This record gives sequence, C-alpha cells and structure tokens, in this order.
Amino acid sequence: MNITIDREVLLENLNIISRGLPLKSPMPILTGIKLYATDVDLFLTSSNSDISVEVRINDQSLVIDEAGSTVIPGRYFIDIIKKLNSRKINLYLSDNKILIIKADRGEYKLHIMSALDYPKIDFVPLEDPLTIESDLLKELIKSTAFATAQNEKKPILTGVNFKNTSGELVVTATDSFRLSQKITTINNEYKDFNITIPSKSLDELLKAIDNYEENLNLYFSQNKLLVVYKNVCFQTRLLDGNFPDTSRLIPQTFPITVKFNKDELIEVVERVSLFSPRDKERDKEITYSIIKLTIRNDRTVELSTNNATVGGANEDIIPTEVIATNPITIAFSSRYLIEALKSFMSSEVSLYLTAEVRPFVIKGERDFNLTQLILPVRMD
Amino acid sequence: MNITIDREVLLENLNIISRGLPLKSPMPILTGIKLYATDVDLFLTSSNSDISVEVRINDQSLVIDEAGSTVIPGRYFIDIIKKLNSRKINLYLSDNKILIIKADRGEYKLHIMSALDYPKIDFVPLEDPLTIESDLLKELIKSTAFATAQNEKKPILTGVNFKNTSGELVVTATDSFRLSQKITTINNEYKDFNITIPSKSLDELLKAIDNYEENLNLYFSQNKLLVVYKNVCFQTRLLDGNFPDTSRLIPQTFPITVKFNKDELIEVVERVSLFSPRDKERDKEITYSIIKLTIRNDRTVELSTNNATVGGANEDIIPTEVIATNPITIAFSSRYLIEALKSFMSSEVSLYLTAEVRPFVIKGERDFNLTQLILPVRMD
Repeated sequence: MNITIDREVLLENLNIISRGLPLKSPMPILTGIKLYATDVDLFLTSSNSDISVEVRINDQSLVIDEAGSTVIPGRYFIDIIKKLNSRKINLYLSDNKILIIKADRGEYKLHIMSALDYPKIDFVPLEDPLTIESDLLKELIKSTAFATAQNEKKPILTGVNFKNTSGELVVTATDSFRLSQKITTINNEYKDFNITIPSKSLDELLKAIDNYEENLNLYFSQNKLLVVYKNVCFQTRLLDGNFPDTSRLIPQTFPITVKFNKDELIEVVERVSLFSPRDKERDKEITYSIIKLTIRNDRTVELSTNNATVGGANEDIIPTEVIATNPITIAFSSRYLIEALKSFMSSEVSLYLTAEVRPFVIKGERDFNLTQLILPVRMD
Repeated sequence: MNITIDREVLLENLNIISRGLPLKSPMPILTGIKLYATDVDLFLTSSNSDISVEVRINDQSLVIDEAGSTVIPGRYFIDIIKKLNSRKINLYLSDNKILIIKADRGEYKLHIMSALDYPKIDFVPLEDPLTIESDLLKELIKSTAFATAQNEKKPILTGVNFKNTSGELVVTATDSFRLSQKITTINNEYKDFNITIPSKSLDELLKAIDNYEENLNLYFSQNKLLVVYKNVCFQTRLLDGNFPDTSRLIPQTFPITVKFNKDELIEVVERVSLFSPRDKERDKEITYSIIKLTIRNDRTVELSTNNATVGGANEDIIPTEVIATNPITIAFSSRYLIEALKSFMSSEVSLYLTAEVRPFVIKGERDFNLTQLILPVRMD
C-alpha cells in the first residue's frame, strides 16, 4: 500500500471513523483502524460492540500508487494526523510490517496488525431506504435520548424507541421515572417498524452527522440499523426485546395548567436545587435532588427544597398563566425537570398536572408533538 | 447579624476567599467561611492546612444593620451567591441558628456553625514589608513553579525557593531531574531571607492576584509568608528544611550551542512524543516519555522516539544557529522540555550542551536571567 492524500481530507474522515473506535476492546484488533486501498478508493473502517463505521474516500487529492490493506493502532494514528501540519500525507506499507507516515520532514512508523484478522462487518444491504432529513433526525434524538435509563437493569430502556405506523413516527425514551416523546410524520409508503436504538449509538451518530445537513438514508434489518450519507456508512446494533407500551401512561385531561417563561423557570429550579445533598452520587437514579413546586391559592408558585444538613431554599415565581381550582404541591427530581425544559425551543412552557403523585406533563407552544412527562415522588 | 451588600462585590471577594477554602477537612469547621461584621466592615475568612485568606469589605454598597459573626458552609454559600442574579443580597442571622440569604423573591437558609469554634488565624504582624510589583511576582512564579516535585519524597522540593542576598533575589524550583531559576533585583535595603513556599500555595496566590496589577506587600515570619494587597490578606505556611544548594548544578561552559525557533521546536517535540507509551501513569515521575535529540555532522537536528509496542517517530528540524564540534545525541523527558520552553517569552531559544548525560541548559534571548536546566537520561 502506498497512498498520498490531503491531510485535511484524511482527518475529516478519521473524525467520523473515530465514533466507532473503542479505547479498549476484548478483541485488540478492534482498537485499530482498517485501511483498505483499491486502485481508486480508500476505505477506513472502525468497529466496536455497538457501532461500525466505514467511509469511502474518493477525493481528488487521493493518489494510490499501490493498493493494499492493513490495520493500524487507531488512537495513535488519529493523534498524529491531528498534530501534523503538512498539507500532504503519504502512507506507505513497508514489508507488510510497518506503516510509514511521511509528512514534510517527519517520518512516523506504526506497527501494523493483519487486515486478515479484522472481523468482516456485515452491513445491512442497501435496499429499500427510508429517507429522512438530517435536521429532523437530530431533533428527534436531542429531544428524547436524555430520558433513557443510565443503568442496565432493564436493557431495553437504555435505548430510544422508533415506532412507525403508516407514516406516523413515534419516538419515545423512558427510564420509568420520566418519559420523552416526539411524534412526527415520515413517508407514509414506508413499511411499519418498531425498533429500539442504543442511546450511546445515537450520541455517536449525532457527533458524526453534526456538520451534515442534507438527507440521510436509513436501512433496517432484524437487529441492525444502517445510516448512509455522503461517503459514510454508520451502523448500530438494535436492542432486543419489546419496548414497553407507553401510550396509556400519558394522562389526557388535566385540571391544572400553569405556564412559565422557560428560562426564568430553569434559573429558579437551578438555584433552589443547589441546596440538595451532594457527594452521594453512587446510584445516580436515586440521589437526584428533590424539589417541591406549590401552586398557591393566590396563583403564585413557590419552588422549595429542604436539606437536613445544609439548610433550605424557597423562591417565588410568577407564572404567565394559571388554571387551577385548588392549591397543589408536587415533589420531583430537579434534574428531570431541567433536562425536560431544555428540550423545548419555545420560550413559554406549560406544566399540566392532575394530582400530587400522578405524572405531570410539560409542553411548549412552539414544540409541536413534543411531550415530556415526569413522575413525581411521594412527599415525606 | 444583618447586612446588605451588592451581590457583585460579595462575589468578587468570595472568589478570593475561595483560594483558602478546603473541599474537605479533618476540622469540618474549616469547610465554612467565617463572616464577621463590625459596625463598619465585613470580614470574610477561609483557612486550610496551607493557606489562610481574609478580606475586609468596606464597600459603599455595604449596609450593616446589626454587627455579628458566624460560620457558614463555604461551597454552598459561594454557589448560591454565584447563581443569584439580584443586585442586592441581604444576610440575616436568625436566632443564631440559621443564616437567611434574601435576594429578590428567593430566600435561602443555611445552617450555621459557631464563630467561637473557628480557629484563630495568626497573621504575620504588618511590620517591615517587602514591596514588590504584582507582575514581577507572577512572572517569578510562572517561570519556575512547574519544576517543583509532585510527590512528597523530599517535601522541600515541593516548594519554590526565594533567596534574597543584598537585593539579588534568586528564585529556584527543582524536582532533582530538572531545575528552573530566575534571578531578579529587589530593594537592596531589605533584609536577607531564604524561604521555600509550597507550590500549591503559589498556584492559589496566582489565581487570587490574577486581575491585580499594582504593588504587593510581603511580610515574613519564621514559618509564614503574608501577602497583603487591596483589602486582602493572603497567608501561606513555609516549608521546613534547607533547600538544596543548586549553584554548582548549573554548568558554566558549553562546547555545544543550538538555537531554535521556539514554537517550531515545541510543535516537533509534541508530535514526536505522541508515540511514547501511554496508560501507565501510575508514577508520574517515571513514565514521562523519552525522546532523543541528535545534532548531526551536517548541523541538522533530528528528534526521535521509539516505542516497542506502537512504533517510532523521527523528524528533522533546522536550527537557526549551531555551534558544535562533534555530533551528539541526548535523551530526555519531552514533557520537561516542553514545560521549560513554554516558560520563555523569547521566540528564539538556545540549548547549551556539554555531554550526553550532563545537564543541558535552555535560555531565551529576551528572557534575562531565566535558566531552565534538564538532566538527560542514559540511553539503552
């Protein structure tokens, strides 16, 4: 193998590939990047237990003097290409033992692994794609994925569910204490599907498509999703099992509605929750800080917290609108509320309540079909 | 106690006080900030095993309705004052049990500790100061403190030595593998001294005086240094013991001199040292990455490294000037060289060498009286 390429082109593609590169792996060869040069194209491949990424480089700066393939230590390769500041990079496989990276007056040698030992990646066949706008997919992920479970007690809840029924796509994430759901419409001729994608894979996908704003093609198989765009194939495994039916969890009628300026509410919640206990974050699902929200008879709202060792806090906030027959107090995780609030674009958000320990719902006027739901905790 | 003050004034002073506030302490009361309001002034005090800081606030925004003193949980207090966005803050000691912080529509309550339990801080008497420009002290610290020892094997080496002899102030730090020394002149009527200041205290002092550009007054006692400026008293303990005499460590004649563009040299060293072993940083003093520097017969210079598992790297760099009779190769820690190089303002730096395993010295044309010395390692 002997190829020359513009450093910037190589680096841009390495940044995408790095989304699938594990720092450590039970299979050491997976910490390597596979290079495969045909007579005209250069392929780069990375893979971990969840994600595989392949890019095909066919840039006008690419000169392939000799085809070939090899596997090189991934992090070292990326780091050195990042640090070099020459315009051109030459990669030369010497004696099938060492990859020599030449750039200006520098020469960097990497011990290689055999391309024959690199596992074959089974990509989903490129048939019957669902085409979706990159910006829409980003929005669907960003407004839901934060609500997935962080621990593996119920593995299916560590993923985001995408369910298509005749063109109505319902995207749902829940850790069983809260739920995020966004509904949108897609091509109604596409087959129905019901898949759950690991949220870590979605995080990496978001990074990979961060600068990409055109259409994506999605290909589904029984247990994999392949996203294809530009010269990139990004594939993730899907989670096994049935995602819980959440349709009946979301209350449909609410006796109480209270509307806030979103940024003001976030500020007050962040201040009041400063006084919650710290340094006990062993199990993140349990030690969130609990704050109380009270709608008083006079239609003012108070947020408060109590901390036996440190003290307490309470702050009044004036809602922009209140519909309430009786005063009510609910208690809930401040982190859940803040994460939910930040998922809205609207500057005004409404909380819809039914009773003290019944789930409450948050919606934003300008965020169509986005529902955030939080389960309050019982007060002592 | 009942006082009102502009939030910005309080916060600015809390930021200075925070330099002496420990996160944890065997004496829990030291995790608190002491507030002490006389009829006209508000004092804030923090203290840990190395540093004590006291500020006296006499701002025109300060209104003291009732004098008094108390100790409050320091981190919580700072965090809440940071997060509030009201212009005025009211601090009210209720029943001598709770400090109530009022700001706009919010009320924050902190359980207090007794001011009687707070240890009395013995500040060095304000007699016979050494006056020094803030910028000069910052420069002395920044160009030396990085070379102090990180471990406690020889505690005296964890500090920076300041030795004054008739107005010649020699500032030295060494971890016994490298040495940084800056010489300057101070008021030659000031008494001679020879003190060693913990480098952690100097880090905190740098942060405290970051925005301050006028003169500082320094007061010395047997085992303490007190720095006084504006309304701030910043005191640190000094290290016990004799700082080693380093005067004979620095070679005085050098057969070999090689001059580089500093930024270019840093870049090449950073690239070449990327290939040194990783993930084995248990003992930081041992696992620095070793690179080689070779001055060839043709007066070009090569930097290179070897890594049995990953590969190797070599890069040529053209010096701007070479004085050398014979070729020579030295091996040394790339981190030491980079840290030393970054201490210079000069854009050109010279390396002065004597032999393969003899210390070499780095100097910059525009950095008067700054010497960086590095001890090479033996090559295998």
